[in-house]
Amino acid sequence: MKNFDFQCKTRLIFGENSVKELKNMISGNYKNILLHYGGGSIKKYGLYNQVIQILGKENVNVFELSGVEPNPKLSLVKEGIKISRENNIDLILAVGGGSVIDSAKAIGIGAKYEEDVWDFFTGKAEPKESLPVGVILTIPATGSETSTGSVITNEDGLYKRSLRSNEMRPVFAIMDPKLTLTLPDKQTFAGIMDMLSHIFERYFTNTPNVDFIDHMSEGAMKSIIKNAYALKKDPQNYNARSEIMLAGTIAHNGVLGIGREEDWASHKIGHEIGALYGETHGVTLAIVFPAWMKYVYKVDIDRFIRFATKVFDVSAEGKNKNEIVLEGIGKFEDFLHRIGLPTSFIEGNLPTDKFELMADKATEEGPIGSFKKLFKEDVANIYKLAL
Amino acid sequence: MKNFDFQCKTRLIFGENSVKELKNMISGNYKNILLHYGGGSIKKYGLYNQVIQILGKENVNVFELSGVEPNPKLSLVKEGIKISRENNIDLILAVGGGSVIDSAKAIGIGAKYEEDVWDFFTGKAEPKESLPVGVILTIPATGSETSTGSVITNEDGLYKRSLRSNEMRPVFAIMDPKLTLTLPDKQTFAGIMDMLSHIFERYFTNTPNVDFIDHMSEGAMKSIIKNAYALKKDPQNYNARSEIMLAGTIAHNGVLGIGREEDWASHKIGHEIGALYGETHGVTLAIVFPAWMKYVYKVDIDRFIRFATKVFDVSAEGKNKNEIVLEGIGKFEDFLHRIGLPTSFIEGNLPTDKFELMADKATEEGPIGSFKKLFKEDVANIYKLAL
Repeated sequence: MKNFDFQCKTRLIFGENSVKELKNMISGNYKNILLHYGGGSIKKYGLYNQVIQILGKENVNVFELSGVEPNPKLSLVKEGIKISRENNIDLILAVGGGSVIDSAKAIGIGAKYEEDVWDFFTGKAEPKESLPVGVILTIPATGSETSTGSVITNEDGLYKRSLRSNEMRPVFAIMDPKLTLTLPDKQTFAGIMDMLSHIFERYFTNTPNVDFIDHMSEGAMKSIIKNAYALKKDPQNYNARSEIMLAGTIAHNGVLGIGREEDWASHKIGHEIGALYGETHGVTLAIVFPAWMKYVYKVDIDRFIRFATKVFDVSAEGKNKNEIVLEGIGKFEDFLHRIGLPTSFIEGNLPTDKFELMADKATEEGPIGSFKKLFKEDVANIYKLAL
Repeated sequence: MKNFDFQCKTRLIFGENSVKELKNMISGNYKNILLHYGGGSIKKYGLYNQVIQILGKENVNVFELSGVEPNPKLSLVKEGIKISRENNIDLILAVGGGSVIDSAKAIGIGAKYEEDVWDFFTGKAEPKESLPVGVILTIPATGSETSTGSVITNEDGLYKRSLRSNEMRPVFAIMDPKLTLTLPDKQTFAGIMDMLSHIFERYFTNTPNVDFIDHMSEGAMKSIIKNAYALKKDPQNYNARSEIMLAGTIAHNGVLGIGREEDWASHKIGHEIGALYGETHGVTLAIVFPAWMKYVYKVDIDRFIRFATKVFDVSAEGKNKNEIVLEGIGKFEDFLHRIGLPTSFIEGNLPTDKFELMADKATEEGPIGSFKKLFKEDVANIYKLAL
């Protein structure tokens, strides 16, 4: 186990009708609130009205910035920073999924920084403080509601870059599983792939002696898979929605990464697909991960055997190591297919002619990943494996 | 799953030589520090000198209060409150195990309360604020380093009472597994029983649909058992010490209890043994838990089957439900014996003539527990089962 320094300050308010707790989170604490959201879905299902009603009863000024899209854009972040500065915003209230929260986080650190917020995403500067960000979560997936991360796309060159900072953890996250009952299948299951990937990026490590967190991660993965099948059978299953919503948070609050080197190559490899074709993040991960696993497993075949046997219940009997691992990856692909996700570019109806360009962009700041360090050629090979 | 509101603010600084990070925790943040510890062990192994040296280089005033014993006493807490008030203490630095931390927490809330601190433990008042408590942990067991809990014994009547409050979570916890290499076996393994019990008290619940946390709890229990055996074989195994130290924290930071009714009857039943005979907390739990399990399992036999099969790998084949459960409890008792813990009063060399008195005290505020509500007669029966 590696030494670590961990703190997750976010307060979780979880359960049916928990949106009404917004009142207690706000009351007496904030004065000028920037309400940040995406498109019409929060209006369509009444959440927008409910939030406005709660805020209306508090002595606060509400400013609005909507229009966050999947793969949230730097230009909107800059608009949010401008509004925040001009109106002394003291809370950014993100109502939505990961894109909205990531956008709110970037606004939060940008508003407290005099230079260009993109500096943080290129590594030119480190966030020292942020405006508080509060969350009402509508899509369980990215874990952004408690995580340190934000992923923003700079339209000028289609760069999708991620940033991590403890300063960006939201102060509270309100999570009502009922809000997720209306999610379209694609978002539900892409979200599930996203949360699984957050565990994968930590679970596949070369750091030895991380048994306790390994065990907890395996339990988490098994439960996510079990509840994903329950939702495939019945998207209205409130209990499965609850488990999945909680899982998305725990998968990415950082606990499952303590004491170990994390990887994150697959996220970068997937981000280039998202940046180029606007594909949903979780879908890009479903395409990338099986290929990544096949490409890297020999680095530590025993870890992949553990994954195959403990998470996908592969029996080791009468099989050699490669067979066990490949059966595990096969079962993972089967799981993805059964929940309706593609595991290749072709299944995902995506162009297959830009692999070199994407590999170039993914590695332009140097090789990526840590389980196996990947250079441009490696990344291109992984795209080809995912053809 | 039940609705929940969860926040754990404690910053974990974990790993070899992490004590030197104390400097960064203190520097510029605090002025008058109350150093709180137990007896000689932190002096014997050099930790005391190291702490004094670090504090000596900071611009702080250090006050000392030592003498915390197992089952920490209200009288010492009151002395700490007096010192804190007289010297404008702004950080209580607890260096030790659960007793020292619990005592520090009680001082922290007591110093901010004008009436008798015991009011909090009898439910007459609720803590509204606390002096910050920092921790350097030397014994992995109670999880008090991040938990909301404190257990204090009022010598006037030998009442041992516990309190939970978010206000009592420490601000930081420094955890160096190397500090635990010198622990005597009894403390090591009683500590391991203690952390297992913190999972049990949450895992055995009647709240339905808590699959995700169940899975994570089962992983946690399996890893604790595995690493307990590793430490029985070689107490100098640094990696197993690390896993166990981390496990003790996660077992009781509250995450494994979110969304469910918790039980805590066994703790109360064990507390009376501790209050009367001064026995180590973890040892009392080793005596109580197998008996409690046998007494209550029929309330939800399927949950105990899950426990037996997933945590102790009991094969269900060809057995009826009772047999599966009892084999699981048997394996748990076998585990306790193998790590040197008693599972009965007689094995523990404890008197067996005060069961009625203890049952009376354990239930004097009403029936205890939630998995099965236990009245005085039930508690007496459990003591008899543990004879």
